[in-house]
Amino acid sequence: MKNEISIGLLGLGTVGRGVATIIKQHQQDLYHKLGVQVSIKKVLIRDRYKDRLSSLDQNMFTTDVQDILKDPTIDIIVEVMGGIKEAKQAIESALLAGKQVITANKDVMAEYGHELLRLADAERCDLFYEASVAGGIPIIRTLEDGLASDRISSMMGIVNGTTNFILTKMKQEKMSYEHALAEATELGYAEADPSADVDGLDAARKMVILSSLAFSTEVHLDDVLVRGMKEIRDGDLEIAAEFGYTMKMVGSSKKNEDGIEVAVEPVFLSNSHLLASVNNELNAVYIYGDAVGETMLYGPGAGSLPTATSVVSDIIAACRNLLLEVNGKRVHAAQHESEIKTDKHCYAKYLHRLLVKDEVGVLSKLTSIYSHHNASLRSVKQNPAANGKAEIILLTHKISRKQHLDVIQDLEGTASVISHYRIEGEETA
Amino acid sequence: MKNEISIGLLGLGTVGRGVATIIKQHQQDLYHKLGVQVSIKKVLIRDRYKDRLSSLDQNMFTTDVQDILKDPTIDIIVEVMGGIKEAKQAIESALLAGKQVITANKDVMAEYGHELLRLADAERCDLFYEASVAGGIPIIRTLEDGLASDRISSMMGIVNGTTNFILTKMKQEKMSYEHALAEATELGYAEADPSADVDGLDAARKMVILSSLAFSTEVHLDDVLVRGMKEIRDGDLEIAAEFGYTMKMVGSSKKNEDGIEVAVEPVFLSNSHLLASVNNELNAVYIYGDAVGETMLYGPGAGSLPTATSVVSDIIAACRNLLLEVNGKRVHAAQHESEIKTDKHCYAKYLHRLLVKDEVGVLSKLTSIYSHHNASLRSVKQNPAANGKAEIILLTHKISRKQHLDVIQDLEGTASVISHYRIEGEETA
Repeated sequence: MKNEISIGLLGLGTVGRGVATIIKQHQQDLYHKLGVQVSIKKVLIRDRYKDRLSSLDQNMFTTDVQDILKDPTIDIIVEVMGGIKEAKQAIESALLAGKQVITANKDVMAEYGHELLRLADAERCDLFYEASVAGGIPIIRTLEDGLASDRISSMMGIVNGTTNFILTKMKQEKMSYEHALAEATELGYAEADPSADVDGLDAARKMVILSSLAFSTEVHLDDVLVRGMKEIRDGDLEIAAEFGYTMKMVGSSKKNEDGIEVAVEPVFLSNSHLLASVNNELNAVYIYGDAVGETMLYGPGAGSLPTATSVVSDIIAACRNLLLEVNGKRVHAAQHESEIKTDKHCYAKYLHRLLVKDEVGVLSKLTSIYSHHNASLRSVKQNPAANGKAEIILLTHKISRKQHLDVIQDLEGTASVISHYRIEGEETA
Repeated sequence: MKNEISIGLLGLGTVGRGVATIIKQHQQDLYHKLGVQVSIKKVLIRDRYKDRLSSLDQNMFTTDVQDILKDPTIDIIVEVMGGIKEAKQAIESALLAGKQVITANKDVMAEYGHELLRLADAERCDLFYEASVAGGIPIIRTLEDGLASDRISSMMGIVNGTTNFILTKMKQEKMSYEHALAEATELGYAEADPSADVDGLDAARKMVILSSLAFSTEVHLDDVLVRGMKEIRDGDLEIAAEFGYTMKMVGSSKKNEDGIEVAVEPVFLSNSHLLASVNNELNAVYIYGDAVGETMLYGPGAGSLPTATSVVSDIIAACRNLLLEVNGKRVHAAQHESEIKTDKHCYAKYLHRLLVKDEVGVLSKLTSIYSHHNASLRSVKQNPAANGKAEIILLTHKISRKQHLDVIQDLEGTASVISHYRIEGEETA
């Protein structure tokens, strides 16, 4: 049995420094847990000058990734360098060299996760990625270990801190979108270019990773219905409040005999659902499992130490496997060939906000369009608007996304659709 | 290295059957995860006739616990028999025989946990107890592994499903306490004798276990301030709602340089706190850690399969340790000798509900009592009551429990105290 485990750390940014700190501070703990010494042997840095201020031994530093990948004494590679192309290559080379790999890279895992996990299998290596989704929340481990014995039927997640922060400020402090985004940027929650966050791409990548794991199948980015924050109109948050909902950017993932549906979009979430109370930059994932019922994990979705904590728990798992010589022996519960559902099979309740001419018979004209598509309504409310117009809010019973889209299309000419939302959280899935 | 691990199961009740089911269904999974065969070898039953309907092989059954404890081929003992005396003896004997022990027994762990964990250390054996607190929620593992690298400053938990169910029904459906308790009993959430639940003892035991672990110290049942549901008066829930709070039975545990305070009592929890939205029979534990910040775990606190899932994750951990030959090697982070704080050092905001004679000068008389004890008030509200009486609601700023109790005592003669509550969740700890 090995009596020493060496780590090669690729990247010394926010997360990398956190990892180095935790491993150093928890030397004794790691030794007691595993019975062997675990330490960082080499660190890939971008700039020898800039990074020499770190408290790490300078002799460990290299600017050449091959220095680390080709070192036969290094057992585990921790990829926290970010980016896609280089990071993917480094992970591949590490696996091909028989090393265990830990990554915090959501972009790589969403885009190339299936390919890389197959490579890891073929090479009998571990490829762990806890920190890639929801930073400090052990969601991957929960889906893999804790709920492994359970059939998961659906998940809902607030997995993007930036948009959750913005929506919280807009609701609680009546801030404008622009003002809230500016504050998010100032606090470091939003990137200089926030489009991946506000357009839903970041959350979609995370839902690809979570859905693939939860349903033991290959979900791809193309499979996700994505609607960003630009769909939200002035007054929509107030309408949500009026009807007992909270607007949230929700990643949802559901499976039944018809297949899988994955979506990221602003939804009207029932105030009675626990997820509606998850505020500010915090993340949460709500899981419905057949055996365990409802569970939720809540916590920080980003940050140096929270994310590094997740990386270190992956390192401990890889060390255990190394010592047991069982690396790469994942159970695939026979990767399912699940179909992505068509719009015909995706059912939900919807809210439509329309603007119509305020004239006799308009409501009857409207509702006949819904009847025509068998879209049954549970509530209709008319608000006066300016200039001889009226605003109509319609809430449907459960209808298919196809019915919903057909109605929206047919409304043209009779009403203009200001906005429309899926309604979630009114009953357990 | 071992190539087979055998389990002795003590008890075949709700949880025991769940454990047997999961181990049977996940044979292949366990083999892949660990590289060895894991199976149940013997089962302690109470009544050979009654239990023979189980799907397990009858040859495994015994009614003599020694049959199992003295079997040298059994590596792991799973104690799910319940009760205190017999269960404690069985755990002790198992540890003394060098076996790894998993227990779901909250009563034993709250009362004898420190003693048994010391014995396990001395015998170099594992003693795991994930299922003893909050059934399906991996809270012990999170405190031990996930947050091991973090200093935990406080925790708040809804750890008793029965009282949470009752309070939810009282709030949402305006049910009486008696009606809600009857419904909890009917649904199987409450025991025939619900006193351990409604008096707070069950929750106090769980908080003893969690606090000892989170603060690496020995907290005992005597250290916990316990106030049960009988402290709640008619109208208290409405007052909570009026001021933006929800009444919850909360187990709280806080640590600072002055020491530790642990309490279980009905509190006024700010509606803006996530824990206020945890409803029905569900449990949740909210943790504040220095590095990770706020995290919460939410899920079922009881039930056969959820609880069994926790037991099986403990079994997997013990198997890993067996294979690595590191059983019993826990790190104690130097068990701290933390003092339990006196009432002088426990600070909180309070709400006092008083009944006074509706006469000139009474408010000034009242408030002078608060001033006398330096208890500063942030809100006073007077409601008319019948028979020349007035109801006064006073909310304090942060004061010590000593100030709070001194005020309550000095109010005698001037006002009768209908009820009083700690206020929680208004800011992060």
